[in-house]
Amino acid sequence: MTNTNMSALKGATAPIHFGSFLVTPQVFHTTTLSYALVNLKPILPGHVLVSPRRVVPRVADLTPAETSDLFLTVRRVGRMVERVYGASSLNIAVQDGVDAGQSVPHVHAHIIPRKAADLDHRGGTDAVYDMLDGEEGDVGKAFKKAEGGKRADAETPKKKAKFPVVDNEARKPRTMEEMGAEAEMLAREMEKEPVD
Amino acid sequence: MTNTNMSALKGATAPIHFGSFLVTPQVFHTTTLSYALVNLKPILPGHVLVSPRRVVPRVADLTPAETSDLFLTVRRVGRMVERVYGASSLNIAVQDGVDAGQSVPHVHAHIIPRKAADLDHRGGTDAVYDMLDGEEGDVGKAFKKAEGGKRADAETPKKKAKFPVVDNEARKPRTMEEMGAEAEMLAREMEKEPVD
Repeated sequence: MTNTNMSALKGATAPIHFGSFLVTPQVFHTTTLSYALVNLKPILPGHVLVSPRRVVPRVADLTPAETSDLFLTVRRVGRMVERVYGASSLNIAVQDGVDAGQSVPHVHAHIIPRKAADLDHRGGTDAVYDMLDGEEGDVGKAFKKAEGGKRADAETPKKKAKFPVVDNEARKPRTMEEMGAEAEMLAREMEKEPVD
Repeated sequence: MTNTNMSALKGATAPIHFGSFLVTPQVFHTTTLSYALVNLKPILPGHVLVSPRRVVPRVADLTPAETSDLFLTVRRVGRMVERVYGASSLNIAVQDGVDAGQSVPHVHAHIIPRKAADLDHRGGTDAVYDMLDGEEGDVGKAFKKAEGGKRADAETPKKKAKFPVVDNEARKPRTMEEMGAEAEMLAREMEKEPVD
């Protein structure tokens, strides 16, 4: 939980990877088989990811125990972010494979807290999906950029922007400090969340 | 499995409800706590739904056992439809609550088989979400219409169509016979699917 061990979690934590990216400072919750992390570029406040600890690309690659643990973690973390961010609903989405829009070849469930009319200025409730699949939801690209490379631009095919209101490129990814602070806050909130 | 008992499943099956709708003939797979059904208006071939047997609106309302069973069923059914419909990826999405776009107040996971470039004519990979949240993915409205009422039009707020290529209102919901045939085919395919 200190900056020294670069983790929002209490006690020692082994390095945690999201695909090829080291994300330990962004992780706010772990179970035996899963973990939850904050996003570089949340598309709405409280947009977090839940992944299996084992780096595999597809849901079908998970064992039954990993599958259960992953979605029990989604359920518990979802309840927490809905409470903490004052939301009333959640979008839960898994892009399971490249042709479904997956950008990092490591199973991850998006959890996005929703409120009434929260995306009216972007086109309505369903705008969340354009954002999820557009540049601002491209977690792979965001992580590559955070690592300082420009290769992300070359590797990620250009997608058509459907909602011209926001210039995604102008939105800066959050700093490690910002993400670390949110991860610490969410780690504390997870402790308040009933286990069942 | 006959039209007499109105079920694609072998043996006697108690009536199964999706929200307030009786969907027994569309159900192709059941477990102790979950079931899978074909859609009235699939947005892509093989688009199916998985629900808990208990009618509750939110994922947080599920018990841990129901949550595990639901997503183990999603994983197994997903593997099956990906194989049967010759797909390479899956979109898995739960609209968990009204403000996330949920149209029937009964937890349901959408499973949508995806192939490379399958939605290029609709705007690209992410067009699936517009379709999911637009009129053609509105399962509540589709079921209400299937029940013969016009009240669906009055109850469902008009949504802006983003992809004008397809006139959704012109697309007819499938008949009970079509859905029953698909459900029987998928019930047989589920038997080939390994349990783990």
